[in-house]
Amino acid sequence: MSFKTISSHMAAQLDKELMGPEVGFTLEQLMELAGLSVAQAIVKEFPYVPSRKSQVLVLAGPGNNGGDGLVCARHLALFGFNPVVYYPKRSSKTPFFSQLVSQLQFFKIPVLGSDDQWIKYLDEKDTLCVVDAIFGFSFRPPVREPFGSVLKELRKVQERLPIVSVDIPTGWDVDEGPLDNESIVPKVLVSLTAPKPCASKIDSLETQHYVGGRFIPGSFANKYGFEPFDYDKGDQVTKLVPT
Amino acid sequence: MSFKTISSHMAAQLDKELMGPEVGFTLEQLMELAGLSVAQAIVKEFPYVPSRKSQVLVLAGPGNNGGDGLVCARHLALFGFNPVVYYPKRSSKTPFFSQLVSQLQFFKIPVLGSDDQWIKYLDEKDTLCVVDAIFGFSFRPPVREPFGSVLKELRKVQERLPIVSVDIPTGWDVDEGPLDNESIVPKVLVSLTAPKPCASKIDSLETQHYVGGRFIPGSFANKYGFEPFDYDKGDQVTKLVPT
Repeated sequence: MSFKTISSHMAAQLDKELMGPEVGFTLEQLMELAGLSVAQAIVKEFPYVPSRKSQVLVLAGPGNNGGDGLVCARHLALFGFNPVVYYPKRSSKTPFFSQLVSQLQFFKIPVLGSDDQWIKYLDEKDTLCVVDAIFGFSFRPPVREPFGSVLKELRKVQERLPIVSVDIPTGWDVDEGPLDNESIVPKVLVSLTAPKPCASKIDSLETQHYVGGRFIPGSFANKYGFEPFDYDKGDQVTKLVPT
Repeated sequence: MSFKTISSHMAAQLDKELMGPEVGFTLEQLMELAGLSVAQAIVKEFPYVPSRKSQVLVLAGPGNNGGDGLVCARHLALFGFNPVVYYPKRSSKTPFFSQLVSQLQFFKIPVLGSDDQWIKYLDEKDTLCVVDAIFGFSFRPPVREPFGSVLKELRKVQERLPIVSVDIPTGWDVDEGPLDNESIVPKVLVSLTAPKPCASKIDSLETQHYVGGRFIPGSFANKYGFEPFDYDKGDQVTKLVPT
């Protein structure tokens, strides 16, 4: 596919600038829009049908990628899906992450911790897809526990249970792509703001590619070396079509 | 139209509960979703056409309704419109309101203050519509300056320049409706979360009615005496059709 990518280093820089004193975005705002866009990608890729299975397992990591997953789960519930969240390592960096958990509980969405059985939800009879919101663009190997085991389980089921990765397929090198043939292969990738270099490796994998996190002006995209993406009307997500 | 409404008193209660310790929403999250939904209503009602006028004048009041307007303006810019914001009385309650202004400046959206000429933007040759984000459900009469003069100007142009009111048409009594025949008549009303009682007075006025602010579960709507609204897929706004 022909699209510009933004390196892990530049993505970190971009985020810092967006939340810096001059631009003034808050984490709460950006995470809300990012999580919403992932939920909208799921609606587009797996349209909700009342009579069909509607369970979505959301795997949330310890950082901001996990936070995007928590927000996504809440919007999925509003869209008629039936999310279950596995959130084994919880951030205490800001109280906002525990507020996101309270919001899920308000929606009566199960939020499983490290002691809970989550593997039973990896059953394609009940589950429509799995959201991989474990690690984002600041991931550096190795994958630590319990997420190493989570990836092992995902590899076992990925042929029959589609994985939707948020920004980065967990375990992939952000700039290089899959590290070995043990890496997971997502059915859907939702890049946030702009694809990271690893996204150019999905060409040969038949992964559907979306861009979400619609919150920067075109001039700012240009400053970071990419073009604004072509969203439809008021959509928060756009599908990239192979060229 | 047949829809349940929620009184100003209950709307205040609902907001307080959403942002209380148990549910844990932040103002930033709710305002982002509310403002986004108003922008999406404008996309639906006035589809953007590249060759056509695209200027939108956003009138922002001093409180949360004004904040929704500031967020709406930013999303309008992302959707291809050309917003101009008039924000004469700025909240210093939380630093977040000045961050919303910084975000607008980041998008190069003009933000006019009390000393700036705003009336020239009330010209239907250039302007597509006016967003009335002046007062919301906590409004109590009388309308103070400069907003009394703003309403006078709006009444002069409303036949040829459509007004989009956010939650409450400014100057209307939240529970009773228009106070006199001097009240403005919006072309579009975007109720947030649920219509307030004054919304039932728009039947005879040919006002298009949307509901946005999609952030509560059905059980919570029921607790406050209304039914969840029927949104399409991942939409953040839904149009109520007269029955």
